[in-house]
Amino acid sequence: MNLVVLPARSGTRVSLNKGQALRIVNTHGGQVVDLWAYLLDGSQHMSMPHSVVTLGRIKPRVGDTLYTQLREPILKLEDDQSPGTHCMLFAACDRARYKLLGAQGHHHNCADNMREALGPTGIDPGYVPTPLNLFMNTHFHDHQDMEVVEPQAKVGDFVTFRALQDCIAVMSACPQDMVPVNAHGCTPQPVGYCVLD
Amino acid sequence: MNLVVLPARSGTRVSLNKGQALRIVNTHGGQVVDLWAYLLDGSQHMSMPHSVVTLGRIKPRVGDTLYTQLREPILKLEDDQSPGTHCMLFAACDRARYKLLGAQGHHHNCADNMREALGPTGIDPGYVPTPLNLFMNTHFHDHQDMEVVEPQAKVGDFVTFRALQDCIAVMSACPQDMVPVNAHGCTPQPVGYCVLD
Repeated sequence: MNLVVLPARSGTRVSLNKGQALRIVNTHGGQVVDLWAYLLDGSQHMSMPHSVVTLGRIKPRVGDTLYTQLREPILKLEDDQSPGTHCMLFAACDRARYKLLGAQGHHHNCADNMREALGPTGIDPGYVPTPLNLFMNTHFHDHQDMEVVEPQAKVGDFVTFRALQDCIAVMSACPQDMVPVNAHGCTPQPVGYCVLD
Repeated sequence: MNLVVLPARSGTRVSLNKGQALRIVNTHGGQVVDLWAYLLDGSQHMSMPHSVVTLGRIKPRVGDTLYTQLREPILKLEDDQSPGTHCMLFAACDRARYKLLGAQGHHHNCADNMREALGPTGIDPGYVPTPLNLFMNTHFHDHQDMEVVEPQAKVGDFVTFRALQDCIAVMSACPQDMVPVNAHGCTPQPVGYCVLD
């Protein structure tokens, strides 16, 4: 299995034919990867709040289908060799987020990574949907503060998504180094991916 | 305090000047109200996933500020005389949702109510952001099934939001009568609201 490297702090896209699968590998462990998916014409995208309603849970299990904002199936979580803590609730980090955190000047961010990766396809996302934050280790407690701690994903842990429609997947190796979203002392790492038939 | 009635299954909008407050009263108890807010030029809207990140929790407490997709403050939950189970995670019910639930023909839905209420302002929402689902009684359990049960809000329970910017609030008295989102045997009820200086 030849993995393509997605460098730390960067984004990319990959086209998937219906029936193909995308495997995303935590090659260094402890790294969050933001995932989006769009139909080829840009008319629909994978939507976390719609998936939450249809799935009936806030963290996906193996076998779960993820849905678009029109509630059509788009990706299926076919395999999950990780602790499965993926987060469906967090907005992607963006310029405003890093400004609030006190970053000086430009800071790489998942929202810009997504826009740049999608740009050449001609799809104008308009807005940045909530990504599926792979490997992100969040726990929620209603009115109490939620916990966001280092991912437990180990070196080689991976997830595999089957495309249920022709689509474009967009990934961003999360550049977060100011709060402990990523491990290694909050140091972003590369990840790997491949397309499987 | 003169309340305006928002009839069951319908939506409306109200303009708020910065500093004014919107009180929403569960006049019959047990009724969910979807709430959105837009800046007057439509460039920003209240965003649940961005608010979740900035707040650090998935259910708002009194004193919490809600943010736009650009992470600017827009509304503050100033008072909450209800059990406070409001849900920040659920996509608004829409035509696709009712079709999946087996509704025959047209079914009133919060997404259409929002679009219709906002229409005359000239703001084109483009997409339907996740609303703040007021009084909605949801509980989340990571990989386990979440629970959606009847609201515990009693007759006369209310919430009050202070506008932190000039904005347009949109409300929909949730028309859900196929799953137990609303009480009274899943029968949608009217609610009331008023603007306070």
